[in-house]
Amino acid sequence: MPTPSHPRSISGPINPSMMTDMYEYTMLDATLRDGTANRDCVFEVFTRHLPEGRRYGVVAGIGRLLDELEAFHPSEADLRFLSDRHIVDKETITWLENYHFNGTIRGYREGEAYFPNSPILQVEGTFGECTLLETLILSILNYDSAVAAAASRMTSAAKNRPCMDMGGRRTNEWAAVAAARASIVGGFKGTANLLAAQLYGLTAIGTAAHCFTLVHDSERAAFESQIAALGKNTTLLVDTYNIEEAVRTAVEVAGPELGGVRIDSGDLAALAQRVRNQLDALGAVNTKITVTNDLDEYAIAALQTAPVDSYGVGTQLVTGSGAPTCAMVYKLTERMGAHGVMEPVAKKSKDKATVPGRKLAFRSYEYSLASCEHVIAGSAQALADFAPGEGWKNLLVDYVDHGQIDDQWRGHDAIINARDYHAQSLSELPITAQSLMRGDPVIPTETTVLPQ
Amino acid sequence: MPTPSHPRSISGPINPSMMTDMYEYTMLDATLRDGTANRDCVFEVFTRHLPEGRRYGVVAGIGRLLDELEAFHPSEADLRFLSDRHIVDKETITWLENYHFNGTIRGYREGEAYFPNSPILQVEGTFGECTLLETLILSILNYDSAVAAAASRMTSAAKNRPCMDMGGRRTNEWAAVAAARASIVGGFKGTANLLAAQLYGLTAIGTAAHCFTLVHDSERAAFESQIAALGKNTTLLVDTYNIEEAVRTAVEVAGPELGGVRIDSGDLAALAQRVRNQLDALGAVNTKITVTNDLDEYAIAALQTAPVDSYGVGTQLVTGSGAPTCAMVYKLTERMGAHGVMEPVAKKSKDKATVPGRKLAFRSYEYSLASCEHVIAGSAQALADFAPGEGWKNLLVDYVDHGQIDDQWRGHDAIINARDYHAQSLSELPITAQSLMRGDPVIPTETTVLPQ
Repeated sequence: MPTPSHPRSISGPINPSMMTDMYEYTMLDATLRDGTANRDCVFEVFTRHLPEGRRYGVVAGIGRLLDELEAFHPSEADLRFLSDRHIVDKETITWLENYHFNGTIRGYREGEAYFPNSPILQVEGTFGECTLLETLILSILNYDSAVAAAASRMTSAAKNRPCMDMGGRRTNEWAAVAAARASIVGGFKGTANLLAAQLYGLTAIGTAAHCFTLVHDSERAAFESQIAALGKNTTLLVDTYNIEEAVRTAVEVAGPELGGVRIDSGDLAALAQRVRNQLDALGAVNTKITVTNDLDEYAIAALQTAPVDSYGVGTQLVTGSGAPTCAMVYKLTERMGAHGVMEPVAKKSKDKATVPGRKLAFRSYEYSLASCEHVIAGSAQALADFAPGEGWKNLLVDYVDHGQIDDQWRGHDAIINARDYHAQSLSELPITAQSLMRGDPVIPTETTVLPQ
Repeated sequence: MPTPSHPRSISGPINPSMMTDMYEYTMLDATLRDGTANRDCVFEVFTRHLPEGRRYGVVAGIGRLLDELEAFHPSEADLRFLSDRHIVDKETITWLENYHFNGTIRGYREGEAYFPNSPILQVEGTFGECTLLETLILSILNYDSAVAAAASRMTSAAKNRPCMDMGGRRTNEWAAVAAARASIVGGFKGTANLLAAQLYGLTAIGTAAHCFTLVHDSERAAFESQIAALGKNTTLLVDTYNIEEAVRTAVEVAGPELGGVRIDSGDLAALAQRVRNQLDALGAVNTKITVTNDLDEYAIAALQTAPVDSYGVGTQLVTGSGAPTCAMVYKLTERMGAHGVMEPVAKKSKDKATVPGRKLAFRSYEYSLASCEHVIAGSAQALADFAPGEGWKNLLVDYVDHGQIDDQWRGHDAIINARDYHAQSLSELPITAQSLMRGDPVIPTETTVLPQ
């Protein structure tokens, strides 16, 4: 199994520098003219609220972001486009020819739970180099985190039964790749998506669709063909015509060593029980049952007592189970002023005001469970002097140091680590986090602004 | 403005052949072994229902699909991956080395309204060549059509005021490109997304964000900088601090020739009216007002009487305004049997049964408005003999003829044509189609199965 530690960026030779809102470039252009492009800045990614009723969010996409950051260099064709459209002037083109992000990025670990106002990512560098990244950073984190949060809830609902991503066909073809990856962060065990499996070294799953049965002259012929190709340990799809007949045929063809059957329609709880009884009666006691009909976390929870062995999840996974994006924003919180001194800044827009200054973030615990998210804002000096409470967990790690990407946070291993870290993070939250009932964030976020 | 008539595929040198569920390849492998891979087949894309409460759907993504179809050839690395993972055997690898889709595709025009059971796309070819395309076709049509439907509703709600896509940051970075394109099909006038503008020759829009104001020492300095770079016809963002002061400063700096102001927070209807009054009092009677705060079709409709000139739409556009996917499926409806004769086939799965046989599709009219969608199923001979009613519109066009892609359906011009066609298609539906109230599909679909 090819498991490249640094997979090529999924955007490949089309670099991500045009996956950007035009205003990032027009702002770059104007600030290069007036000199503010060179001001040191701190930008912060956060969300003002979780999706309605959700108890926690899940950070995902960091590894993809680091890959894209590395690939972020406008090509000659891109520069020609920017020039031909008069989006930027010649001096800006020259600046872009030499562009390399030399700033510093730190943030929450991939897989970490987050809450409203958690400073999920902090990007430090010049205004010019940081502003270009806004759209890309938000695209990646907003989508991947939405999918990981859905996956996390489904994984909790499924208890120890594995969940598998089968949602690629229900979302954009590239989003499908990101969704497969994010589902693993949220606890899924495999994906139907081959490109995700290829790029990230993930487990690929899947055997046959209804058309496979239909193209054959009989269901028996289809099952025989599949077993000839994939062996008896394969999973046969049994609901094309009549499930009871199909199960009987499946065991006749494969014998009791049949790996599994899949049910994709009808009342899954009742059907799973009937199929289990039938399989057991036929001696196929180790044959697994997979179900795959428009599942979400609630449907999975409702199947807890049904004899189901694994879940294949599609639409609701890749669309974030009702919350297809995360409302994360990227805001300037501190910048160098005219006199060369860093100054906290904030917008005062109604309902969209921001907290000025760079941030630290900690999580405190009571009886080994998280009790509060602490966001500490202030100047670099004030933050350096800040003494966190006893046992507070520091939530920020370093991803990029003056342009140097820390490779431990990307590639296959980083995904598996993020999954394990997420499981750990979730286990440290109050148990109500795993409740599917709507409610407030499971712990509060307290923001403290330190005096200058 | 570069307007390539055949833009490079957005997947670029990473071809889309791995953007596929694994089971497409395992089915290919098993059917190549038993010979059924070579059976002629007809697959059909349709949806069993529109998103809840929606009156019509909008076909989108066809041009992208044709681009991806052309690029669909597993690379050497892909073949090695399929082989190393034991997904297919050597004979299948050889088959894939020579793979080229030689089949025929016809379907609804991009921009066409569709309804439950409309045969949106029909793919004819051998089982092997058709089955490989399932995931990719569904990914593209499901996402793009979801965005186009949302865009269409927003465009209707906006009446003659232009809507602009600003949603890239709220969805996967590649989905953002597809969304920008689909928004145009639905009637949008431009996009903030540079890659979409570059690939498809679309109008790009956007000027500055709050961070641009914040990085400067004063709002006045920011406005001066923007006007120096972009001219007086630019749009200034006026809600970073205090809107009234900002508007005054904006007109002081730019004069009454100021192109526009943007409001991104607060009660947009009330603010737009106050800003309009203030601009008029300052003599800036031609300065436009753009609003951009979490808009959807309902919010846009509520702003009908407010003095707003254009809408920037983000989250709700790229997430399909509550319906982020379309539930389209790809089903085998006819295939050659053991005796070399084409036979209609259908699965009987509970709630997921399909109508066997290839299809024709027509729309009939009363008083110049659509009254019924007619789906006619049957053998090729029966369909050839079928005489449609008078004035019925044939809904199917030819996209690919035995592997030859008809280029009129892709590239920049095809997008503009699809937008115009959509406007026409919508105008021919009963006016309740444009109601934002939830309801049933605005016309019924009648399916007729012709005798063999």
